[in-house]
Amino acid sequence: MELPSRLMETAVDHMASLPGIGRKTALRLVLNMLRRSEEQVEAFAESLVALRQGIRDCQVCHNLTEQDQCSICEDRARDDRLICVVEDLRDLLAIEGTGQFRGLYHVLGGVISPMDGTGPNDLNIESLVERAASAPAQDGKQLEIIFALPTTMEGETTSFYLFRKLASCDVQVTAIARGVAVGDDLQHADEATLVQSIRQRLPYTQ
Amino acid sequence: MELPSRLMETAVDHMASLPGIGRKTALRLVLNMLRRSEEQVEAFAESLVALRQGIRDCQVCHNLTEQDQCSICEDRARDDRLICVVEDLRDLLAIEGTGQFRGLYHVLGGVISPMDGTGPNDLNIESLVERAASAPAQDGKQLEIIFALPTTMEGETTSFYLFRKLASCDVQVTAIARGVAVGDDLQHADEATLVQSIRQRLPYTQ
Repeated sequence: MELPSRLMETAVDHMASLPGIGRKTALRLVLNMLRRSEEQVEAFAESLVALRQGIRDCQVCHNLTEQDQCSICEDRARDDRLICVVEDLRDLLAIEGTGQFRGLYHVLGGVISPMDGTGPNDLNIESLVERAASAPAQDGKQLEIIFALPTTMEGETTSFYLFRKLASCDVQVTAIARGVAVGDDLQHADEATLVQSIRQRLPYTQ
Repeated sequence: MELPSRLMETAVDHMASLPGIGRKTALRLVLNMLRRSEEQVEAFAESLVALRQGIRDCQVCHNLTEQDQCSICEDRARDDRLICVVEDLRDLLAIEGTGQFRGLYHVLGGVISPMDGTGPNDLNIESLVERAASAPAQDGKQLEIIFALPTTMEGETTSFYLFRKLASCDVQVTAIARGVAVGDDLQHADEATLVQSIRQRLPYTQ
């Protein structure tokens, strides 16, 4: 597909560099840009530059923020004896979306994946261990670290690695429950999920 | 989904304004942007602004170009007795991609669609009629205008409208063939296509 101008080539190349966007879709997006006013395109471009310049990692939990600490870490109403470990911002947003978790987070920035070349040193693991080490039990209540990582091989590997790194700290380590999703038929659940849901059975309550 | 900063909100809103991009995908694209260097994001943004400022319609055929006329209209080696009418740039690129058409183009910029509020005056129809009117037969050979519009109701309506507008011009009007696509089974072709392919049958050649 030879485009009629170099400017279009460059713009399509950039659009196609986004994940999940092929060259055909990129061309559609670029043609859409051409139907906008110059001011609209400038606002679009400016929003990306401002984002990249203004957003940084929260110094505590690696959530994204415009300040040194994110709004969750700064919220004194939240329970600082609970730290939920997630892979990335989207998982954090999913849990926040439920409105039911009132503890803090720790965003790893990925999971250990030798296939993708992601090792433990590429993740925010040291800072999690530091948080755990510097939080002694208060009134006999330990800090609880909840693993909420993906149920994939990489996620499980990462959980196991974290568990060993945290072994020397005075913390309680838990993991979110695996089981049959709410609204799902048992016959459509995979075997591994069914096994987990039976192993993790709980006293019945209404 | 409440994002952790206003800068992210703005960037996600802009990404989600692109066709076919929902807010979840927009967030994925924005997180991808945050993994790039500032220089890379600036280059991305700059390519869109430069595109919008530098690209204009070809004065003759409304293809996109950085000059007054596009490279196709300026190519003296092409047959200026053939004008292929297409809906938009992507259809032009598809035909160019075959490498078999050596005439010129006319890009309408859409098709007549009362549902979408697109009337004849929103399309580059006047300029097509002018091109047709100002091209008298040379050596007894008329200008040929080929309709290559979509096989939809809107496309057919537009072809019929153009045909009537061109009636007073000394031109030959043709349309691309409708028929069973190469590689397709007859049993899977829809009825309208089959009828057209039988009506438009040709002497058999090898």
